[in-house]
Amino acid sequence: MRADLLDAVFSEGRSVDDIGKLMASSNSKDSDPVLFTRLSEDVFDGILFEERSSFYYDRIARTACNKLWPSRDPELSVAVISAGLCDAFVAQEASITLKFLGFSNKVYSDCGVDDFSKFNLVPRILDNYKVVIVVAGLDAALATLVGSVSEKPVICVPTSVGYGVSRHGESALASMLLSCAPGLAVVNIDNGYGAACMAARILNLLDGRKED
Amino acid sequence: MRADLLDAVFSEGRSVDDIGKLMASSNSKDSDPVLFTRLSEDVFDGILFEERSSFYYDRIARTACNKLWPSRDPELSVAVISAGLCDAFVAQEASITLKFLGFSNKVYSDCGVDDFSKFNLVPRILDNYKVVIVVAGLDAALATLVGSVSEKPVICVPTSVGYGVSRHGESALASMLLSCAPGLAVVNIDNGYGAACMAARILNLLDGRKED
Amino acid sequence: MRADLLDAVFSEGRSVDDIGKLMASSNSKDSDPVLFTRLSEDVFDGILFEERSSFYYDRIARTACNKLWPSRDPELSVAVISAGLCDAFVAQEASITLKFLGFSNKVYSDCGVDDFSKFNLVPRILDNYKVVIVVAGLDAALATLVGSVSEKPVICVPTSVGYGVSRHGESALASMLLSCAPGLAVVNIDNGYGAACMAARILNLLDGRKED
Amino acid sequence: MRADLLDAVFSEGRSVDDIGKLMASSNSKDSDPVLFTRLSEDVFDGILFEERSSFYYDRIARTACNKLWPSRDPELSVAVISAGLCDAFVAQEASITLKFLGFSNKVYSDCGVDDFSKFNLVPRILDNYKVVIVVAGLDAALATLVGSVSEKPVICVPTSVGYGVSRHGESALASMLLSCAPGLAVVNIDNGYGAACMAARILNLLDGRKED
Amino acid sequence: MRADLLDAVFSEGRSVDDIGKLMASSNSKDSDPVLFTRLSEDVFDGILFEERSSFYYDRIARTACNKLWPSRDPELSVAVISAGLCDAFVAQEASITLKFLGFSNKVYSDCGVDDFSKFNLVPRILDNYKVVIVVAGLDAALATLVGSVSEKPVICVPTSVGYGVSRHGESALASMLLSCAPGLAVVNIDNGYGAACMAARILNLLDGRKED
Amino acid sequence: MRADLLDAVFSEGRSVDDIGKLMASSNSKDSDPVLFTRLSEDVFDGILFEERSSFYYDRIARTACNKLWPSRDPELSVAVISAGLCDAFVAQEASITLKFLGFSNKVYSDCGVDDFSKFNLVPRILDNYKVVIVVAGLDAALATLVGSVSEKPVICVPTSVGYGVSRHGESALASMLLSCAPGLAVVNIDNGYGAACMAARILNLLDGRKED
Amino acid sequence: MRADLLDAVFSEGRSVDDIGKLMASSNSKDSDPVLFTRLSEDVFDGILFEERSSFYYDRIARTACNKLWPSRDPELSVAVISAGLCDAFVAQEASITLKFLGFSNKVYSDCGVDDFSKFNLVPRILDNYKVVIVVAGLDAALATLVGSVSEKPVICVPTSVGYGVSRHGESALASMLLSCAPGLAVVNIDNGYGAACMAARILNLLDGRKED
Amino acid sequence: MRADLLDAVFSEGRSVDDIGKLMASSNSKDSDPVLFTRLSEDVFDGILFEERSSFYYDRIARTACNKLWPSRDPELSVAVISAGLCDAFVAQEASITLKFLGFSNKVYSDCGVDDFSKFNLVPRILDNYKVVIVVAGLDAALATLVGSVSEKPVICVPTSVGYGVSRHGESALASMLLSCAPGLAVVNIDNGYGAACMAARILNLLDGRKED
Repeated sequence: MRADLLDAVFSEGRSVDDIGKLMASSNSKDSDPVLFTRLSEDVFDGILFEERSSFYYDRIARTACNKLWPSRDPELSVAVISAGLCDAFVAQEASITLKFLGFSNKVYSDCGVDDFSKFNLVPRILDNYKVVIVVAGLDAALATLVGSVSEKPVICVPTSVGYGVSRHGESALASMLLSCAPGLAVVNIDNGYGAACMAARILNLLDGRKED
Repeated sequence: MRADLLDAVFSEGRSVDDIGKLMASSNSKDSDPVLFTRLSEDVFDGILFEERSSFYYDRIARTACNKLWPSRDPELSVAVISAGLCDAFVAQEASITLKFLGFSNKVYSDCGVDDFSKFNLVPRILDNYKVVIVVAGLDAALATLVGSVSEKPVICVPTSVGYGVSRHGESALASMLLSCAPGLAVVNIDNGYGAACMAARILNLLDGRKED
Repeated sequence: MRADLLDAVFSEGRSVDDIGKLMASSNSKDSDPVLFTRLSEDVFDGILFEERSSFYYDRIARTACNKLWPSRDPELSVAVISAGLCDAFVAQEASITLKFLGFSNKVYSDCGVDDFSKFNLVPRILDNYKVVIVVAGLDAALATLVGSVSEKPVICVPTSVGYGVSRHGESALASMLLSCAPGLAVVNIDNGYGAACMAARILNLLDGRKED
Repeated sequence: MRADLLDAVFSEGRSVDDIGKLMASSNSKDSDPVLFTRLSEDVFDGILFEERSSFYYDRIARTACNKLWPSRDPELSVAVISAGLCDAFVAQEASITLKFLGFSNKVYSDCGVDDFSKFNLVPRILDNYKVVIVVAGLDAALATLVGSVSEKPVICVPTSVGYGVSRHGESALASMLLSCAPGLAVVNIDNGYGAACMAARILNLLDGRKED
Repeated sequence: MRADLLDAVFSEGRSVDDIGKLMASSNSKDSDPVLFTRLSEDVFDGILFEERSSFYYDRIARTACNKLWPSRDPELSVAVISAGLCDAFVAQEASITLKFLGFSNKVYSDCGVDDFSKFNLVPRILDNYKVVIVVAGLDAALATLVGSVSEKPVICVPTSVGYGVSRHGESALASMLLSCAPGLAVVNIDNGYGAACMAARILNLLDGRKED
Repeated sequence: MRADLLDAVFSEGRSVDDIGKLMASSNSKDSDPVLFTRLSEDVFDGILFEERSSFYYDRIARTACNKLWPSRDPELSVAVISAGLCDAFVAQEASITLKFLGFSNKVYSDCGVDDFSKFNLVPRILDNYKVVIVVAGLDAALATLVGSVSEKPVICVPTSVGYGVSRHGESALASMLLSCAPGLAVVNIDNGYGAACMAARILNLLDGRKED
Repeated sequence: MRADLLDAVFSEGRSVDDIGKLMASSNSKDSDPVLFTRLSEDVFDGILFEERSSFYYDRIARTACNKLWPSRDPELSVAVISAGLCDAFVAQEASITLKFLGFSNKVYSDCGVDDFSKFNLVPRILDNYKVVIVVAGLDAALATLVGSVSEKPVICVPTSVGYGVSRHGESALASMLLSCAPGLAVVNIDNGYGAACMAARILNLLDGRKED
Repeated sequence: MRADLLDAVFSEGRSVDDIGKLMASSNSKDSDPVLFTRLSEDVFDGILFEERSSFYYDRIARTACNKLWPSRDPELSVAVISAGLCDAFVAQEASITLKFLGFSNKVYSDCGVDDFSKFNLVPRILDNYKVVIVVAGLDAALATLVGSVSEKPVICVPTSVGYGVSRHGESALASMLLSCAPGLAVVNIDNGYGAACMAARILNLLDGRKED
């Protein structure tokens, strides 16, 4: 896995020049795949076209990558469940990172707890996936619900969505760490990338190519 | 209501002497009802028997009172729902305060979200009550669930139960304030007494004697 | 109540496109009423006119709605009291949400505690309402005063107004939770919408149509 | 004033031996007055009687002193107003420190805002004093009320009384700093001693002996 | 004092319209003096000239006022001492508020502790004033030094200047509350206005006109 | 997994009576396995012997259980690595919970980063396990190191060990969430039980019996 | 040292005019060296060219200086090691300050712990320097590693780089203060200037000119 | 230095048995020196005499050691300056650790800033030492003063002494990190041991035996 991920670049706070040069150095056909995360639209648009020409930018996830790692066994699939549409940017970052790493996945958005009828579908959905990533802000009650209805490994990503005592995601983080559903694991606020990497570490265990 | 509650005494940090004298002054037959809250067992036991003889002490709620206010219409009833048995001391304080004020109520304990089958009974139960008090620590997901399945006024009491990022109840408080179920109201951590008073303010609106 | 509120949309952090599509889908005559909260002026103005044509935007409350739910019994009325003119945006959000839900209400602004003569009028005013919403920032002393002079259910909304140790409303929130006036209930910072929903839950109890 | 106060000893965390020796060195007739603050009953009782024989210990204020500085003009008087009986230990520390420095003062306890009728007496009382010290925990609304009805210098002492979001007095401190009554000054949580020193600095300005 | 200050308007978060109307209503010759604090340059400049024509705006203090209260006895003078030039905006707000209230005062800026030779002049300067206001950010060591060399009442204003653990002035606030110089009183972060009001409360005690 | 874990009892803050009755109800031969966590030695010793006779108490982990679930495939093994001997109580709780759930595991203690030579052995060790649990307090640098040298799923447990800015484990928690090694997942402070449950969720994926 | 540093100017929050005048007064040939820190590009560019003509602005470090102090013994050299390229602005501030004070130094960037092979070079590099400055954000594990492999004085600068629980550098600060490598010293978040000053204080001890 | 310090044992939270065994293993004549820090009196007294017979326990510093490392050049001396007698336990830990490492040092206690006359002696004293350790709680103004009057490397240790907003030493820590005296370095709250280790790292640079 370390080898796979060597070329992920945390881009926040870095200059257009800086990122541009890195991209230019990965433009050739035999460059390894590289993923830029937390790359603002302004910075990406500011880079010279010839430097960034081989990169695809996702405006929701704020990521850019030049190519994907080879696809893995489609059975090794991940469900990314998000509570509300405001959390989409984090769910998308998780989804894109998984794709980048070769893993199939599907995003289910707007699965908030406030509408019970919608939630009742969740357990049935989860049977089709090996790992579940839950993305939620505010009180993050979705994490507890998913953890209660599924035996699968659940990776929780608190989001900075909300105001007042949401404290930029600190309250959702605490809720997830305190969930009464046992065995939920948590990553940093808004860190869809990290959740995807944890999922990849788990899925690698299941992959024949790896075990051999 | 202010009249009703005038004689509630917050007892934390006050001396045996202090509390003893106050109790002694409420020992006669025509004394008004008085409720002592957050009164430690040690302090109560340290008071001279003749001073505290007319007071009944509840060791779970840590309250003492000499008599109750007259009973109100039994329709004006409150459900006190708590997530785990560790939260019992807060649920009991709410229940005793309601009794003290003349309101009927029932405590449902151990209604945690981690066991969905138990939780499915909750909505049906709530139909029988006018107001719901939810008592929960940790991630307080119970508050969101109750708020989602009931249209009744829901008053939430976060508890200091837990460890690590529970931060003595601060995280449960934030979860309740951030609940995606709209219209939940919250009181201070462990404040079963305050939740009961808010319930009383609401029930007073429904009471013929009051309206006339 | 859940049915009533199903169509409130928390709009912060969502794109012009996103909100525009939602509005467009509620433009027809028989659409249900929908309320958008925390919708910035920039986003509203950015939406195509034909998408938002049936929506009225309130620039103080930062809400938009297409129509109101049917009016309720005018006796089921709420007083919205705010401490200073800086808190107007929160008081207005509570007021608009109540109107949206069909409840009559009146906003009293600039009732700060610093001018005692002004405050002395408050108790008499409150007699005319079933529920009181108090909106205040800074030390939120107004909440304690209102709670002391009125027996009605009091719902407190701390606001993020202030600087220094106001800590974006955290201090007002704590003050309200700690009020020595018993039985005040509190919602999240700046959450006028939530206070209105709590008021609606209470008023529903009083409403014949509901009880039958 | 610095001269006056040179011999106040903050005693928390110091050993019986340590305090005992300091007291012994102030036992003779012509020793200067010394005030020990935050001196626990256990430590005082543990000191050899001959070491502490000239010292008087106040079990509420947890102070000890051997003698008082000469009395000042009785007009230079201070009102110490506290919200509840739980705050008595801080009000008493302020009162004893003022006596130690030679200033007359009177403690008014249990002046909470929750009982308006009691509070209405406050303004009239304050006319008789030059400076007001307000001692309050929880939401500290008393500070705002006193500041609103009096033009005198008001020194506020938040107390650590309370639970939950009282956060050991931090919330009362914030409330006092944010008071909408202009010109309140604040000292550290539970610091009755500091409030008395500030009062002394002000009263010194009024004292003929000082001005000449 | 309350009378004096009735017309101070906290302007943060209020609209151009709002402030404009208030100013317009104080434009006539016999209007009382009004002071607007925390009024941004943008808002002031946005107001119609005829509305704001009688107001003078101070770009450092971010205050506006139409006229001053009558001058008081020039002996009732205040020293405003600030640690660095970055703190100038707070020192200026204190100074302007004092002028507005009729009190003479002088600002000494850049008296940081890091240059001992500069600081050695401070004690001599202070003899000429009745009250001292200390304005400082970062570690606020200046407050302790001034408090140690002067017997006068010292009012401390922490400022939000700094970065990292300055935490927008919270650390300077704590330092001032914890000062080992006894009897320092503190107001909210950046609250030069509040410090001036406290000074006015003290100076009023010394003023013959008031005492009679 | 939910079935497996149904009978874990969080025991903190519950009475001797309470726990005693629960244990008594699991004393018969065909009782299911039950695990009590965070059960203090005092409470366990206070329970009547006949109530607790079938339970084994681990004084380091502060857990009690009556029997274990059937052993799982020994290949499904977990390494529990702890930084210092002070963290032993958390590592032991993780280890006992894994044994209770039927999973083999081994605890490696005192693998702190301060001694590089010791740490160099770590990577080789990890090859023998499917999942790694890292237990560390203070700066939790061990988590980053393990995450950097291993591709396996790494579950991090911050501990409350330390003083000063360790803030009861909050700093270790933040360090783990911020680790520059991608894909580490974190549970609540001191929550060895939760880490073991997450490990079990992962190992269940690998277990033939489950997959079939 | 104080003499050396007298003319460092903390520029944040100061106006173009203010800084411009200070620069103009240091434009002559015999002016002493002056260093402006935390000077934004906007402010520097806003200053009249003739005022700032003798100053060189570094856009990464956000510093400006007119000249350097005389070079010191090149043996008195410092290694500035930074974890990632996002931390470059702090490492550069330390480097420029050292140059300004006459000390030779070299910046090694992108020495993160996540790539062990890169890190293995670090110990050998450090032999060539007297003092090491470590610049790191997030979990700051680099500080512990450097402290473990080197006996030299290590000065740690936490940076505000990161998101979520990085809390603007507070978590990196705590990690550094808690490092299990003994004897690391820490300065304020992002304070490359301060780290350089501490290094200078140490190097001065080694300098013959100073010792004599 | 790492070699020197290898055998320091952080003893907090470890059992009597645990520490006893470690001490027993260092009882022979040729054992290396070992230092136990933060070892409570209760634990030390609970160890069997034969296990701890070769260890000397310091009841103020709460340390135990069996022997000292060889003395270093007496010129390599450290001044340990503490603000008040309450800080003695931290100053003593620093002093003992320095002695353990072979470095001469002297403790100056009660050098608070509140008494200027005492403080004026400080600069002259410092000339005799190579490194200064400042130990202070509350507002820690002593650190700034020492840093202002001395060019030597100053290592600051905040202490947990105080109450209210001292926040167990967090405020003193912030003050020291924010000191306007440039180039102060800081260690964790109460960490006298760490300050001594940093001093040792610096002094090692000056030591001929090391340099050769």
